[in-house]
Amino acid sequence: MERIHSTAIGGRVGQTVKLAGWAQAIRDQGGIMFIVLRDITGTAQLVISGELLEAARSIQLESVIEVVGQVATETKSHSGVEIQVSELTILSMAEPELPIPVVEKSDAPTDQQIRLDWRFLDIRKPEKALLFKVWTELERSFIEYCTEQEYIEIHSPKLMSTPSEGGAELFEVQYFERKAYLAQSPQFYKQMAMAGGFEKVFEIGPVFRAEPSSTPRHATEFNGFDLEKSFITSHQDIIQEEERLIVHALTNIKTKYGEEIKRLYQRDVHIPVIPFPQLTVAQAKEILGKLGITSEKEGDLSPEEEREISKYIKETHGHEFVFITEYPASVRAFYHMRLEDKPDITKSFDLLWNGIEITTGAQREHRLEILIRQAKEKGIGTESLQFYFDFFKYGCPPHGGFGAGPERMIMKLFGLDSIREASYIYRGMKRLTP
Amino acid sequence: MERIHSTAIGGRVGQTVKLAGWAQAIRDQGGIMFIVLRDITGTAQLVISGELLEAARSIQLESVIEVVGQVATETKSHSGVEIQVSELTILSMAEPELPIPVVEKSDAPTDQQIRLDWRFLDIRKPEKALLFKVWTELERSFIEYCTEQEYIEIHSPKLMSTPSEGGAELFEVQYFERKAYLAQSPQFYKQMAMAGGFEKVFEIGPVFRAEPSSTPRHATEFNGFDLEKSFITSHQDIIQEEERLIVHALTNIKTKYGEEIKRLYQRDVHIPVIPFPQLTVAQAKEILGKLGITSEKEGDLSPEEEREISKYIKETHGHEFVFITEYPASVRAFYHMRLEDKPDITKSFDLLWNGIEITTGAQREHRLEILIRQAKEKGIGTESLQFYFDFFKYGCPPHGGFGAGPERMIMKLFGLDSIREASYIYRGMKRLTP
Repeated sequence: MERIHSTAIGGRVGQTVKLAGWAQAIRDQGGIMFIVLRDITGTAQLVISGELLEAARSIQLESVIEVVGQVATETKSHSGVEIQVSELTILSMAEPELPIPVVEKSDAPTDQQIRLDWRFLDIRKPEKALLFKVWTELERSFIEYCTEQEYIEIHSPKLMSTPSEGGAELFEVQYFERKAYLAQSPQFYKQMAMAGGFEKVFEIGPVFRAEPSSTPRHATEFNGFDLEKSFITSHQDIIQEEERLIVHALTNIKTKYGEEIKRLYQRDVHIPVIPFPQLTVAQAKEILGKLGITSEKEGDLSPEEEREISKYIKETHGHEFVFITEYPASVRAFYHMRLEDKPDITKSFDLLWNGIEITTGAQREHRLEILIRQAKEKGIGTESLQFYFDFFKYGCPPHGGFGAGPERMIMKLFGLDSIREASYIYRGMKRLTP
Repeated sequence: MERIHSTAIGGRVGQTVKLAGWAQAIRDQGGIMFIVLRDITGTAQLVISGELLEAARSIQLESVIEVVGQVATETKSHSGVEIQVSELTILSMAEPELPIPVVEKSDAPTDQQIRLDWRFLDIRKPEKALLFKVWTELERSFIEYCTEQEYIEIHSPKLMSTPSEGGAELFEVQYFERKAYLAQSPQFYKQMAMAGGFEKVFEIGPVFRAEPSSTPRHATEFNGFDLEKSFITSHQDIIQEEERLIVHALTNIKTKYGEEIKRLYQRDVHIPVIPFPQLTVAQAKEILGKLGITSEKEGDLSPEEEREISKYIKETHGHEFVFITEYPASVRAFYHMRLEDKPDITKSFDLLWNGIEITTGAQREHRLEILIRQAKEKGIGTESLQFYFDFFKYGCPPHGGFGAGPERMIMKLFGLDSIREASYIYRGMKRLTP
């Protein structure tokens, strides 16, 4: 008999079915036992009596069991699904004391560090599993959009001979007899694809930052959704591409998981209106000044400023997203293209979603002499970047792109307070396990 | 005016269009010039005369140009598409001497090492770009299949505190004040998802092997398509899943790119018949012995044996694929489940495609006491694996999965002689650039 999921039982009253999953709750009433069986789709109540009671009584919470039984015609289970068990197999017995509860009482949540230690038990909770179901749909939608638009997917190397984003926050690797570095972004190799004539590429992969701080927004290893496009006229082309992409993904997520997100997180998925609001850094700073919010960050927004400007846009425009554009060259990498009429300002943007930066993007400088000049201005040794500069010597079209962070997007979609909750397995300065 | 691609010109005779791309060939006939313009979809012939000749004469091969012009009513171009140019813009001028030719004469191919040095020029060739278009479709199909089957996507950490596949071939990372290792496979973390109740997961990501050899089949960094599934009854369930997946992907590839693969590589995409042939290692060895092919590899196939057994299956069954099953425990990792009736034999398989292993898979051992015993038998220190053993303590269903290598699949699909040609950017012991 083929195993079915608990959510597939609905129309099968009276039929015999096979289920398998985790014993989430066990109630022994003497002559009858009830077990709540959880699988990846939901739960079913098992009713056990007679000869099976002895075996059933040995079952520890969170053991994996398989049962065959008849779908009850009438049921008192709150999930509305009850199985009168006729066969019972214990596939994997759990040890008696769970290190953390899988069904957590809301008034006594387990400490985050302990939950991260026992991440495999933590993700058994349906509300945790949902994060990764939605991530899957987010990523599938990203790929669907890109492939429909004829983007080519690349997988750029994570082992590099030279840093991609400057010398700081870099992990060093012993590479046979020499040193290599872990890629902090696929930036150079996305641009290589533009020089290589691929015109439009995307990449999904890990990025590494030796981030010594432990904020709720940072990790030492996280994921990037990256995109790069040739023959653009400005960063606005990239902004428009990202708007369409986000609307596409959120629409899919709302259709497939909107109700479940509502049920488990009491949150609605809002489909943003295109175009998203935009503010230059200077405009944002002016608004923030009027609101009495200042920071020492010149030409860039502090985390508090990001939160406040998002709040302001939400209140004035009813929009969860806002593009911040025109960052000064002083706070952006050397490879950013600058505005024709404002040579200190880059053709760049960040995208904020409900108070946090989820994307950084720009038009890149594709004219070699200007690119080298900008690198020198930043005090960057041009020798180690020779391979990169070569990309621009033999015909490289104007291009730009962005990098978006799925962990942060999941965090904002679900209103989580830390990226650690949105990572399958979080990595930080003090955490390299499990 | 919106730029269009060269392949979109067809139905627009007499219309004015905008094109952009690379100057692949330039022919100056005095009063008239012809430029073959290449974009990611194909080529068009530009006809330039009059005032534009001066600017056109400055164009170096492989420069990026943008033109506006009328689609000619009659054409002598072999591509059948000709544009009478009325506007010409040089977007990015190439330096005069190309380090490698982009259009290569078949009788004088550039040395592979030089081509890899100038990979961004190498991938401009339409036959190279096609590899990555097909890879994109392969990966899209993998994700499409998995998400249709309700698999959850995970992104497991590439930074680990302990080796995943044994101590050899391991890259060490300086992780703040301690050591970390680059993941050699997502094995442990796929299994964690099974202990975490995700039931079915897949992952696409890089894997790292400090492989000191430089064979055409190996790289130090490559990509893995990984999948893991719970509630299986044996490795045969995983074999069947992979068969369906491969047929799904190859069908999509044939539909979208079959003609282009035929045109540029003179190869047909064959859709394999399900079920794929299977041989146990013992059976394969027996056949090879009769064919007079022997190797010193006991219980495992040498590269030559893989080629020969594939050839044999091709001849006898007309099939490009063959599953080799039942590898002895001695040649497989400790976490493999063994056959009930043959305790020295694992529930494992490799999949060979046209002579090369593209997949390794198995049912895993989910019973903790057996798993620990098997680790000890292999002489593996169980202390550093405590976090992994914990996965099996609190209810872990039977499960199995596989890891497949897209580089090798692309290699076989196109009949390439080295994985270096199938990697966007190859990494080997002696190559860490570009």
